[in-house]
Amino acid sequence: MTRSQPLTEFELIGRYFTRPTQHTVLGIGDDAALLTVRPGFELVAATDMMVEGTHFFSDVDAEALGHKILAVNLSDLAAMGAKPRWAMLAMAIPQADAAWLEKFARGFFALAQRYDVDLIGGDTTGGPLNLCVQIMGEVEAGRALRRDGAKIGDEVWVSGQLGEAALAVAHIKGEWRLPDALAASCRHRLEWPQPRVALGRGLIGTAHSVIDISDGLLADLGHICERSGVGAIIDFDALPCIPELRSMKERDQVAQALLAGGDDYELCFTVPPGNEQRLTALSEQLDITMTRVGSIMPGNRVEVRGPAGRPLEWKEAGFEHFR
Amino acid sequence: MTRSQPLTEFELIGRYFTRPTQHTVLGIGDDAALLTVRPGFELVAATDMMVEGTHFFSDVDAEALGHKILAVNLSDLAAMGAKPRWAMLAMAIPQADAAWLEKFARGFFALAQRYDVDLIGGDTTGGPLNLCVQIMGEVEAGRALRRDGAKIGDEVWVSGQLGEAALAVAHIKGEWRLPDALAASCRHRLEWPQPRVALGRGLIGTAHSVIDISDGLLADLGHICERSGVGAIIDFDALPCIPELRSMKERDQVAQALLAGGDDYELCFTVPPGNEQRLTALSEQLDITMTRVGSIMPGNRVEVRGPAGRPLEWKEAGFEHFR
Repeated sequence: MTRSQPLTEFELIGRYFTRPTQHTVLGIGDDAALLTVRPGFELVAATDMMVEGTHFFSDVDAEALGHKILAVNLSDLAAMGAKPRWAMLAMAIPQADAAWLEKFARGFFALAQRYDVDLIGGDTTGGPLNLCVQIMGEVEAGRALRRDGAKIGDEVWVSGQLGEAALAVAHIKGEWRLPDALAASCRHRLEWPQPRVALGRGLIGTAHSVIDISDGLLADLGHICERSGVGAIIDFDALPCIPELRSMKERDQVAQALLAGGDDYELCFTVPPGNEQRLTALSEQLDITMTRVGSIMPGNRVEVRGPAGRPLEWKEAGFEHFR
Repeated sequence: MTRSQPLTEFELIGRYFTRPTQHTVLGIGDDAALLTVRPGFELVAATDMMVEGTHFFSDVDAEALGHKILAVNLSDLAAMGAKPRWAMLAMAIPQADAAWLEKFARGFFALAQRYDVDLIGGDTTGGPLNLCVQIMGEVEAGRALRRDGAKIGDEVWVSGQLGEAALAVAHIKGEWRLPDALAASCRHRLEWPQPRVALGRGLIGTAHSVIDISDGLLADLGHICERSGVGAIIDFDALPCIPELRSMKERDQVAQALLAGGDDYELCFTVPPGNEQRLTALSEQLDITMTRVGSIMPGNRVEVRGPAGRPLEWKEAGFEHFR
């Protein structure tokens, strides 16, 4: 491809984004796609948009970007306990750059294939770089994991480790200087999030409420509390993270990364007491650590307790795109 | 709202984009929405993205923009014969401007209400203005109108009038100078397209193939031909348009507007001979003109015949975002 013979929109879609579908009545190529939701299932639908400068840095690898725009959408389905099935991809790109598109598509389809997701439609246009995926899946009718089911007395758990993606952002912005190896591993966490789809499926019937941690634990657990009409207490020392983060001397920044760091895409969920064995089995089966970090309480706030149970002062609750 | 206290993403969604849903299990406020497709129906899904500078001018009225981003998506469902049911709205906006958002939401919801569409989710972020709607609807299983069903001998019809939106674009760009009243009415066509949803529903069982005219008649009928493995002949003099357009002396530009003008959002469809009565009844019932403009033929090209049946030379086939 040369600049003098740019790809048309239709050539671009045909070359990079048209793959055979596995479970779709009619995919890319008509005015709309057709699909069938199996009897006994509800359709689960979400959308996430990513913009250069707001959600990713301009030097990000195109393959990672193709992975991440699908991963953050899959993470929404994971938080509902849904099985991903279909995706649509709308994108604005400044120019049709063949090398970039090929890498982007490689990252996107590798993840789509892993979760058996059909790309069934989309839109491609010129404009400032903007990626928007709509994800659809199925969940057994009436069984979806929601934000509004937390009960007083529930335990609050999180999967995986928190804070690395926030560390990477701080490092890239020059706010925090990390050793090279740690910077690289944190940046990998930021750019290649792993959606917890199997965990979400496994929590059906056990968890009272689930959310994915995209805006930071405090903000996201706050959404559960708001929707469920409850409060929560978090034990700061219990928050799971890599030892390098826990041992850093910049205490405020560590707290910021653990409590308000977005982009980890772990799940936060509440379960009634007595499910430790079930969660341990799930953790081993999926090879994902799970950590109890607090409790659901009466009230309407999320409090954080530090050493000796003292409340931590807290100002900034999560990543807000407009603040 | 003042600049010193900008809206958060959640306040913005709550204030402007959260309305009661009519036929949705779970709408805005969780990680994903839940909905049920009725037994005997397929889900129909499409997405369209609009970018400032590519799809609309920067001075466009926000209410018109809210209308149009939903209208162009509804037009895709119309072309499938689907009944619209649900939409998601993802948008990047440079800043959270209350007056702009209120007008945008007014235009969006007025149209959503007219077609009984629930807004069930979305995403809102900072960034260069970009609007992306995903539309979902239902169609009776196996009855969807598709691009790939045209048969040799079919008549080619279009709804409404063609070319006014293209005239408006040419006028605004200064390529063509229209009288004020005509400029205003053409601009209204460009900015307030009316999706042909009822017509699409009415064509089920009659039309062999349907597409909406978003990229220009030649390009869009070309898609029908490509997907159906047929060719077509268009009678240029039969193309429906306002008299002011037909009588203009700039013949090349008139042809360009009628054959390659995008953004009219009329339907182009093919029907077997003998359906004139059915189409006349539909036209009267819906108060939409319908005009026979050509025929499906063996081959793989769309030819245009001018006066006395002479083929028209044609270079530019439709609006291509990357040319």
